[in-house]
Amino acid sequence: MNLILLTPEEIRDERLACLRDPRRLRHLKEVHRAKVGDRLTLGVVGGGIGRGELTLLSGDEARFTLEGLDTPPPPALPVHLVLALPRPRMLARSLEHMTAMGVKQITLLHTRRVEKSYWQSPELDPAKIHEHLVLGLEQARDTQLPEVTLAKGFRPFVEERLPTLLEGRRGLVAHPGLAQACPTGIGTPTLLFIGPEGGFIPFEVERLLAAGCEGIHLGPRILRVETAIVALLARLF
Amino acid sequence: MNLILLTPEEIRDERLACLRDPRRLRHLKEVHRAKVGDRLTLGVVGGGIGRGELTLLSGDEARFTLEGLDTPPPPALPVHLVLALPRPRMLARSLEHMTAMGVKQITLLHTRRVEKSYWQSPELDPAKIHEHLVLGLEQARDTQLPEVTLAKGFRPFVEERLPTLLEGRRGLVAHPGLAQACPTGIGTPTLLFIGPEGGFIPFEVERLLAAGCEGIHLGPRILRVETAIVALLARLF
Repeated sequence: MNLILLTPEEIRDERLACLRDPRRLRHLKEVHRAKVGDRLTLGVVGGGIGRGELTLLSGDEARFTLEGLDTPPPPALPVHLVLALPRPRMLARSLEHMTAMGVKQITLLHTRRVEKSYWQSPELDPAKIHEHLVLGLEQARDTQLPEVTLAKGFRPFVEERLPTLLEGRRGLVAHPGLAQACPTGIGTPTLLFIGPEGGFIPFEVERLLAAGCEGIHLGPRILRVETAIVALLARLF
Repeated sequence: MNLILLTPEEIRDERLACLRDPRRLRHLKEVHRAKVGDRLTLGVVGGGIGRGELTLLSGDEARFTLEGLDTPPPPALPVHLVLALPRPRMLARSLEHMTAMGVKQITLLHTRRVEKSYWQSPELDPAKIHEHLVLGLEQARDTQLPEVTLAKGFRPFVEERLPTLLEGRRGLVAHPGLAQACPTGIGTPTLLFIGPEGGFIPFEVERLLAAGCEGIHLGPRILRVETAIVALLARLF
């Protein structure tokens, strides 16, 4: 928690913030070892970042006097990431990684090698997803929540949503063995597809390429999905 | 397990491999859903990669007829990574990430913000470290085990070992706020320092820069150690 992320409701007036949830209180005490008088970095969801002085830390409340939350959050990556739904534990970590790195648009997609049971996982509960996004923001000192959408059918996604998503975006499909090495330092708006463990099936790759995406690879090493996400984002942007 | 990694002892003669450990047997059955007659990718620790036909799969043994293990493993990254010892769970994942990405020399270093108790963790047991290295190799279809060394004192490391390590290597210290953005696509032998959660202390950064290292950063976002490792390696090489 490199940033204490406040909801607008936690800001009582322009100068006072109160938080009461056990997770952040525990973190303040056990990790920050915060004491009254400490100045910490705070931000407000969807808004700015600044500092606040801790004026009270009790068993069920922390209060801060805010010193202006007017620093903008770090810039977002110009990418919409379409990720084949990973297994639940990997989904949690992947959401945190993507958020920490600055992805703001995430689509979780069904593909042939996604186990159907993953769509029943409690990790897909909007509240659970929100939790992981918040952890990613707190880590990276960001305030802008990513938007996560679910696409439970590959064909409907490709037929109905893909053409619009590719307007003004460079489409990239990351898959071992495709022709082009992952480019570096591109600044253009991008639609990035990352497959499931075991990869896209050939039909899926063909459909994405036929729709106008370019195929890219990360070399001969096969990486776990969560590792590939970070490696691709770090290299592309 | 994208590669079944055999020890030399598991290769009975030029053509026959037998494995008996429960982890790989379970993986073969439950994840690969392997059946007699299937051809799978195998490699031997420190050696080549090839295919083998499964000829027996029982409760306590799997046998393969080898078809030549003569493909070389993927190239290594030209980096010696010096990582401030992370907390145990993050160490485990970090070892897997580094290994999967092709790092072959790893030093785990004590720095001021490394909790002393981490050095007592069972995760530092050589057998435990070996386990995570093997998982990383199996993931990335590699056979070359990284070498992991421990450096329990910062000063002795800097004074006694650093000058030799910097011979013929470009030293890089990754730390938020340092002057230079992380370069991309360098091919030169590199000694890369990555700090602990909370970062190096200023004294440590100064010592490393004074010894001839360059300071680099990954932008305004503060990443978890395991995320930073992957992002740095993906961008540098």
